[in-house]
Amino acid sequence: MQISSCVSHDVGRESSLSVDLQRLWSRLMDMAEIGEIPGNGCRRLALSQDDLDGRELFLAWCENRGFRTSFDKVGNLFVRRPGTQADAMPVAVGSHLDTQPNGGRFDGVLGVLAGFEVLETLEDRGIETKAPIDVVVWTNEEGTRFAPAMMGSGVHTGALSLPTVLATSDAEGVTVSSELAKHGYSQGLPPGCQRIGRYLELHIEQGPILEEKDKVIGSVSGGQAIRWYDLSILGEETHAGPSSMASRRDPVPALSRVIDTVFNLTRMDDAARATIGRIQTHPGSVNVVPGQISASIDLRHPDDAMLSRMHDRLLQGAREVGAAFTLLDVSVECTWHSPAVAFDVDMGRVVRLSAERRGYPAMEMVSGAGHDAFNLARIVPTTMIFVPCRDGISHNEREYAAPEHCAAGANVLLDAVLHYACSTDDPR
Amino acid sequence: MQISSCVSHDVGRESSLSVDLQRLWSRLMDMAEIGEIPGNGCRRLALSQDDLDGRELFLAWCENRGFRTSFDKVGNLFVRRPGTQADAMPVAVGSHLDTQPNGGRFDGVLGVLAGFEVLETLEDRGIETKAPIDVVVWTNEEGTRFAPAMMGSGVHTGALSLPTVLATSDAEGVTVSSELAKHGYSQGLPPGCQRIGRYLELHIEQGPILEEKDKVIGSVSGGQAIRWYDLSILGEETHAGPSSMASRRDPVPALSRVIDTVFNLTRMDDAARATIGRIQTHPGSVNVVPGQISASIDLRHPDDAMLSRMHDRLLQGAREVGAAFTLLDVSVECTWHSPAVAFDVDMGRVVRLSAERRGYPAMEMVSGAGHDAFNLARIVPTTMIFVPCRDGISHNEREYAAPEHCAAGANVLLDAVLHYACSTDDPR
Repeated sequence: MQISSCVSHDVGRESSLSVDLQRLWSRLMDMAEIGEIPGNGCRRLALSQDDLDGRELFLAWCENRGFRTSFDKVGNLFVRRPGTQADAMPVAVGSHLDTQPNGGRFDGVLGVLAGFEVLETLEDRGIETKAPIDVVVWTNEEGTRFAPAMMGSGVHTGALSLPTVLATSDAEGVTVSSELAKHGYSQGLPPGCQRIGRYLELHIEQGPILEEKDKVIGSVSGGQAIRWYDLSILGEETHAGPSSMASRRDPVPALSRVIDTVFNLTRMDDAARATIGRIQTHPGSVNVVPGQISASIDLRHPDDAMLSRMHDRLLQGAREVGAAFTLLDVSVECTWHSPAVAFDVDMGRVVRLSAERRGYPAMEMVSGAGHDAFNLARIVPTTMIFVPCRDGISHNEREYAAPEHCAAGANVLLDAVLHYACSTDDPR
Repeated sequence: MQISSCVSHDVGRESSLSVDLQRLWSRLMDMAEIGEIPGNGCRRLALSQDDLDGRELFLAWCENRGFRTSFDKVGNLFVRRPGTQADAMPVAVGSHLDTQPNGGRFDGVLGVLAGFEVLETLEDRGIETKAPIDVVVWTNEEGTRFAPAMMGSGVHTGALSLPTVLATSDAEGVTVSSELAKHGYSQGLPPGCQRIGRYLELHIEQGPILEEKDKVIGSVSGGQAIRWYDLSILGEETHAGPSSMASRRDPVPALSRVIDTVFNLTRMDDAARATIGRIQTHPGSVNVVPGQISASIDLRHPDDAMLSRMHDRLLQGAREVGAAFTLLDVSVECTWHSPAVAFDVDMGRVVRLSAERRGYPAMEMVSGAGHDAFNLARIVPTTMIFVPCRDGISHNEREYAAPEHCAAGANVLLDAVLHYACSTDDPR
């Protein structure tokens, strides 16, 4: 085998240089055994023991290949394959290993393991790069145990403050800080020290578009703007039998109006998305009129201005419900806002060029989901590569991506990483 | 002090014979310390350790007074003060010590401790009765940890089968059977062996009527018919961002229609009651379209025929929602039905006579809530005595009954118990 020190990598031309589909797939399946749940799903909630076990397995693989690993105080992991040019800024690839409560085997994991597969492929072929290549595992991308989502990349890029994040607690009152300390991460580097020149993230689409259009590669031009809200409807807990309907302060009828308000927002535009993922009645007893309802609201749109209009309409609608139910206290609070994101144009071009040369049907598209790449895009040139997932289903045990699609995404990632790690231009 | 063996007790005439308000109140407050929650509430879920601790405290009080205690295989407790007439059927008074998740200090507890106060008052005064007097603590009246409600009295009266009840499990999968075995109740008497001649139950009203009408005693003529339902709306879990609104199988918009259907049922009649106490989205994550919603529905009406019409209308409404949302599976299943109950007419007369002679403003009323007395009424002459609770609030930490109202109820209970325990007529 030839030892090549690539001066400038000709994207996709080295058809002989491809990732090892079998190795990548078997690693995906090995990782899926950690926190496995019925129906081929995974449950590795951020910073839980299962999440830690997944990270330990990944780190063991990296160290067995001789790669240096490090971590920062918010638990982000960095795996480095050094470059030949001392001062070159690293090309980083990454994603996350934490999952939804009923998550799948590919969301996040594919991006991390494909990144590692890129390092191993270069290692196998003895290919040197000018710039170092880092594989990054970002902490708590899902945001379901600890809000907000994309926590690790948010702290790394300065979108979130470390002290605020450390003080965040889960439903049981366990703080991010205590979990990080328990797993030894509090001894890590100050977030942001690990510098990044460019960032690439491979991910399953989590939507049906690629499959519908029979494409294998999605070149992601940017991401939707996202807003999260906490809804609270405060009434009064009382017995389900005696008190007259008129005298009750029952929040449930008002919930129905809020639900209608939220879903009516999606009539404003075809690209609008609305989700009420969590609804809880308190105390939640069959013969007790609930004293309170709490719920989550998730609004998305590719255009910031349109999402702002949806936001205004939501708050207005909540005020109207509150006015209609004078015995109740209706409040909607925006807890998180991620503006629309535009990815690097040249990096998108390189992704599509690679797909074309390798013969993968490709298209340009917008990301419906939020990703760590959104945070990175605010500080360095960034892009994402999507591959299809069956029936567009994600955040579900049934989530599935075909082995050949995972490999196709990893090959395009390989080409793009090599292109930038071998060229001398520094993005800054 | 005179030892009297009452031949026939002249209801309410022995004004000198009254319960000890201070003792009754201090016992209520002592019991409230077990499973105490913020805001003066109590949380003693059926057959939990807190429930067991409450029962142990009560049994210790009874045994210290020298009363014989026994229990059956479903955990019902019986405390006996013997009578002089060997074959006389016991007059039983009772209620429950388990509470709602956020329960108060009086619901159920007042009936049990007032019954014990009656025994102690007779003991203090050395008054013998022909019939034995039993104080009964029924297992799992609330039905929030293990459904259905009124479980112990249901098994005692044959309304529920012991094997079915034993196999029932809570949300964590813990069975009634295992909890009973853990606390030693599986060694108890076969349910129903402890025979009862008549049954009286003192309880807070759990509604606003007595307070509104400025009455101290409610003579309960019967109880509402009650039906419980499990609602399930099955959709498909997917990511909150990418998939188009049209392609989603989101159960939440359908929930809004079901809520409207349920509350519209109360327009059929002023006496109709509808409650949706529990709503849960699964998996309940902010950025996941729920795959399923489960909820509870509680319908009540004093008239069986009208409740049946509400039942039919509910099922019809659910079918219509299912037809309108073809991508979802909407199901409503009736899990429990307690027909309307008529209490014993003569016992109601005795209750009102006692109140009148003691100068307590009284009225006849229907019970909005379900009670163990509903089960007993199906096998023996039964009645209930209500006292006011502040603002009609119950199943809530703020639940409160004034000491003088608790004592008034206990005095009427004392009169009625004495009347039947001293008379020789056997109800059967």
